[in-house]
Amino acid sequence: MGRVAVTDGMSPDAISMLEKAGHEVIIEHHDDDRILEGSLSRFDAVIIRSATKLYANQIKASVKGKGGVKFIGRAGVGVDNIDLDTATKHGIVVCNTPGASTKSVVELTIGHLLASTRHIATADRTLRKGEWAKKRLRGSEIGGKRLGLVGFGRISRGVARIASAFGMEIHAFDPYVKADNEGVIMHNTVEEVFKICTHISIHCNLTEETRNLVNSDMISLMPGIGLDGTKCGNHIVSCARGGIIDEKAACEALESGKLSSLALDVFDIEPLGDSLLLEQENFHGSPHIAASTLEAQDRIGTEMASLLIEFFEDGKPSYSIN
Amino acid sequence: MGRVAVTDGMSPDAISMLEKAGHEVIIEHHDDDRILEGSLSRFDAVIIRSATKLYANQIKASVKGKGGVKFIGRAGVGVDNIDLDTATKHGIVVCNTPGASTKSVVELTIGHLLASTRHIATADRTLRKGEWAKKRLRGSEIGGKRLGLVGFGRISRGVARIASAFGMEIHAFDPYVKADNEGVIMHNTVEEVFKICTHISIHCNLTEETRNLVNSDMISLMPGIGLDGTKCGNHIVSCARGGIIDEKAACEALESGKLSSLALDVFDIEPLGDSLLLEQENFHGSPHIAASTLEAQDRIGTEMASLLIEFFEDGKPSYSIN
Repeated sequence: MGRVAVTDGMSPDAISMLEKAGHEVIIEHHDDDRILEGSLSRFDAVIIRSATKLYANQIKASVKGKGGVKFIGRAGVGVDNIDLDTATKHGIVVCNTPGASTKSVVELTIGHLLASTRHIATADRTLRKGEWAKKRLRGSEIGGKRLGLVGFGRISRGVARIASAFGMEIHAFDPYVKADNEGVIMHNTVEEVFKICTHISIHCNLTEETRNLVNSDMISLMPGIGLDGTKCGNHIVSCARGGIIDEKAACEALESGKLSSLALDVFDIEPLGDSLLLEQENFHGSPHIAASTLEAQDRIGTEMASLLIEFFEDGKPSYSIN
Repeated sequence: MGRVAVTDGMSPDAISMLEKAGHEVIIEHHDDDRILEGSLSRFDAVIIRSATKLYANQIKASVKGKGGVKFIGRAGVGVDNIDLDTATKHGIVVCNTPGASTKSVVELTIGHLLASTRHIATADRTLRKGEWAKKRLRGSEIGGKRLGLVGFGRISRGVARIASAFGMEIHAFDPYVKADNEGVIMHNTVEEVFKICTHISIHCNLTEETRNLVNSDMISLMPGIGLDGTKCGNHIVSCARGGIIDEKAACEALESGKLSSLALDVFDIEPLGDSLLLEQENFHGSPHIAASTLEAQDRIGTEMASLLIEFFEDGKPSYSIN
């Protein structure tokens, strides 16, 4: 049984699963300096979320000969804070829990889409200022419009299913998904999707291919007039990763009216400090909370605990990244 | 052909339908004093929304002998601003357009529900203040929970269909709907619904039966723990009519934590002035915009224009309230 460092918190149920399986669990944040001095090398496994960074040097400092960290668990989805190559080179197994937050992200995506098209954040903001802005808060329906999905993995499919129930026509681009999917129209280029869709939701990873993918050229393709003939404008939502949407280009498009709304849960720089976005009336945002639900955190924790237990009992978990 | 007063605005398409059918349309707001002095008696028909009030005295002032108003069109749903008895007594046909805004109201209801469970208004409010409130904005999923619908008409059924797609279990109470409806569990009392549902959406009319229906006794019945075992708290949404939810009781329940969120598009007094609601972090609201979409306003206008044209051509419209 192992000694496990939990550096960014974990659900109580998951901690107790680990302890019942005989592991020693130490819940404590390790800052970067301590990690570089080898503070994690006294552990057999480490479970992180997004706050702890395990780049090459941090990983090297966490192994010593045949001792030190043998298992890195990312409780969540994104592994951009882990150097997978270095981990693999040192024989460290890396696991994440990609499915556990799907439902929560789908719900926030649809929530942000409706909040955009119906001005929910602005409505509340003006009410609180004592203004009854009924006249200028005319919105538009999502039913009868085309939703374009950039990326067509687990979350995107969930969004497609719900958006279909609202009566949207679903279009998607994903170079790694070839087959047509029930009712979803797949495209060969991302430009094709932007050209015909008034509503876009981003669901891809941040890679060199996708960095600043949504720039002013891409936004300029959007049609502004819905499938049903309504002049509903153009709307973009992202609960994926910062850096995929060029924030400066998006602000310019909001100012020119080319973009009617923008809703973001993720940003180039997080926490979001001073940003041009916050000067835009038709932008609204949330602080990277797509997976921040009681249910997702419980599922993430218990899935991660199961993977770690399997690793120490069977030598390998039922699922790993490397 | 008739002389038609449009007092609260109407979509351009609808105006041009009326004019093409040979009617003279005068778009102009009539304030209450002018109406009481008989300003509408020079018209054969009047089309209003919610701003113009046609109570008994206003209607009496709008008829003269066999002349004056013979048709009142309410472009929208609620007819609480029209005295139907007086209209009927004077042989005035009253029409509304109950179906035209259904889809828009359904979308805002789901939008408000997700905005509540995921703190979308608070998220944007704190971001704009420069705060990264990720930790305290943990939400909960609607999937796996019970949604209780008070009233089970057109809009409520639309909400039920979408909420089912999210994986909610649907419960409803409506004394005027007896049969079970596909997948929806009907109850004999409204208390039964509140007792088992963590999420409630209001979809009834404001009547003497429903005034202050959602009071502190009713809220105190709510379970706080979801069907799936999550401690998600209790959530109430209303895009129906002000006066059904006792706002003071709801504020107290928000303060005590019995209610985790409240989202309202409608209020006791509109426009909403100073209100205790605005002091609640977990309240968010919108200024009665459930039907304020391009699509609903277009459908409302063209449906109302058709009814008026039928009335003048055939002596009666294909649908009327009285």
